[in-house]
Formats: sequence, structure tokens, C-alpha cells
Amino acid sequence: MINIANFKTTYANRGMTLESDINQTNKYYKDNNIALVYKKPTPIKIVKVEYPKNVIKEAYFSEPSTLDYTGIYKNTYIEFDAKETISKTSFPLSNIHKHQLEHIKNIIHYGGLAYLIVRFTTINQTYLLTGKNLLEFINTNTRKSIPLDYFKQKGFFIEFKYNPRVDYIKIIDKILKSKEVD
Amino acid sequence: MINIANFKTTYANRGMTLESDINQTNKYYKDNNIALVYKKPTPIKIVKVEYPKNVIKEAYFSEPSTLDYTGIYKNTYIEFDAKETISKTSFPLSNIHKHQLEHIKNIIHYGGLAYLIVRFTTINQTYLLTGKNLLEFINTNTRKSIPLDYFKQKGFFIEFKYNPRVDYIKIIDKILKSKEVD
Repeated sequence: MINIANFKTTYANRGMTLESDINQTNKYYKDNNIALVYKKPTPIKIVKVEYPKNVIKEAYFSEPSTLDYTGIYKNTYIEFDAKETISKTSFPLSNIHKHQLEHIKNIIHYGGLAYLIVRFTTINQTYLLTGKNLLEFINTNTRKSIPLDYFKQKGFFIEFKYNPRVDYIKIIDKILKSKEVD
Repeated sequence: MINIANFKTTYANRGMTLESDINQTNKYYKDNNIALVYKKPTPIKIVKVEYPKNVIKEAYFSEPSTLDYTGIYKNTYIEFDAKETISKTSFPLSNIHKHQLEHIKNIIHYGGLAYLIVRFTTINQTYLLTGKNLLEFINTNTRKSIPLDYFKQKGFFIEFKYNPRVDYIKIIDKILKSKEVD
């Protein structure tokens, strides 16, 4: 017998997470020949493997040094992370590791686009914040979280749609256009 | 007491594998601000995690659908795989999965550069073969391996050096220049 309560919860959660929305969006982009973007495997440190069947019996999650998603759009290298916060007022910087900040700097240096997609789940608002603006905040602030207001001023609001769910390529288009004018 | 025989074998193997040579090369490129290239985590399917310490107790290696290394060089998206073969005469195509071929096609479509770096370990020769030439071979042949001669004709020989070990960016430069002329 299916436990309906559990099923509903699982289903609802699955439908609502930012990650599944991004995955659906990337599939939409790929199927419609708009962009090629994919999630990288989770970084893991493998300690014990059982032979001959190659079953991993002991492994640990390791700290990521890059961002979760990589891809190409209009000849441009893109890389980003998708993060959720339940806070209504700010995004905790503890979500971003030191190596990831270094990596963002490097991507920008080599002409790629690095950014975050942050969803404030409680107020149901999603923003794209460029790596450049993220680094600018960190370099000019001692705060341990980025206020929602900063996202409103410097970030780009992403409307929730049915298909694709999180249409971030629209924003990337704007950013690439403003770069041409630079 | 250190077992010298074991130590030597381990050390020699470590120094000789293509993967460690590529990692050393990528570090050289990064340290010298030439290119940003990194190895993606190994794709794994996690089945069992033990809480509260988040120890992975059961997981399996899964088939890769992308290539191992990703990066940016001169505003260009690059992605490649590094493969070794002990054959003196050909490179077995069983090394490349169907999803990876699809992925290579997509990278090319979006303006990125996809390629293989193949080392014939027995004769100690290393070649770069573009995704375009790999797909061309597959589309015009029924053979299950690519002859060494094809690498000699269509690929680019990479000389082994002390530092960086596998200087593939030199080849990428040539390829990018020939694209400008296209």
C-alpha cells in the first residue's frame, strides 16, 4: 500500500526545490537548442572500494571548489551555483566556500560568466547575482550575509514560470548585451 | 622500514600516468595565468548514507555522460577526456560512451572545443584528436578502434616535456587560429 502522506510530501518537495527547477530548465534549454548546461557530479572522497564488483563501501562528501553547474551559451563559458535560503531578509555567505570564491575570480579573469541563483524560499523570490557583484559585496562589507535588498538592487529577479521554471538565460542575455556596450 | 621496490613502482606509476601529467599541466596553466582547466568529480550513484556523520556506505560508479576535464581558454569553452591505451596500433572506441559522443556534438554546436588526449603508452606517443575528427571517423567507419595512423594524419602530436608535461594549449592555439581563417 502506498503511504499517501509520504508520497505527497516527497512529491511536493521534489517539485518545489530550486535544484529540480534548474534541472528542468536546463533540459528545456537543451531540448530547444538554446544552451548546453549540466550539473557536475557531487565531489566525493572515496576511501574503500569492494572488488570485484567495484562497490564503494566508504566515502565522504568533500567541500566543493567549483560551482555546481557548467555550460556554454552563445560561445560563452558559464558556471553557477543554485542556493536556497529560508531567511526572509538575507543570504548567509557560509553557503559559499573560500575555494569557490577563488574559482569565481578565475572564471571572470578568463572571460567566463560566474553567478549564483538564490531562492528565498519563504518569500518565494529568486534572484541571479553575478560573481562580479558577489565579490564586490564581499570586498566592501564585513557582514556574514548578503541582505535581500542587495539582491533587489544589484541582482536580477527571475520570475517563476511553468516552462522553463527558472528562465535565467534571459538574464544572461541582458548581461552579455551590457558587456558589448562596456 | 620503507619497501624500496614498492616505493619505486608506486612513484614511477604515479609519474607516468597521463592523468597525473594532465593534472600537473593544468596546475601549471593555472599558476601561470594561461588557462583555467579542472577535472570534474567522478560520477557516482549514492545508495546509502549513514547519519549523522554523512558517511557514504554504499555507492556505485556510474557511466559518464560528459568528458572529464572542463575549462576556459581565451574565452573559449573547452572540455576533454584523457585516455591511455596499451595497444601499439589503435585506440579502442569502447573507451567512449554513447552519451559522451552526444555531448561532444552538443559542445561543438554551441561553439566550444571538445577533444581527446590519447596516450599510446607502449610506444609512448600522445595525441590530441578534436571531437570533430573523432565524430568524422565514427561516421565514416565501421571499425571498433581508431588506428594510430588516423591520429598521425588528423590528430596533433604532443611532445612530452618536463614542465608542463602535456602542453596541449599550444595545439588549442593552432586550432583556434585555423578557425579564424575558416
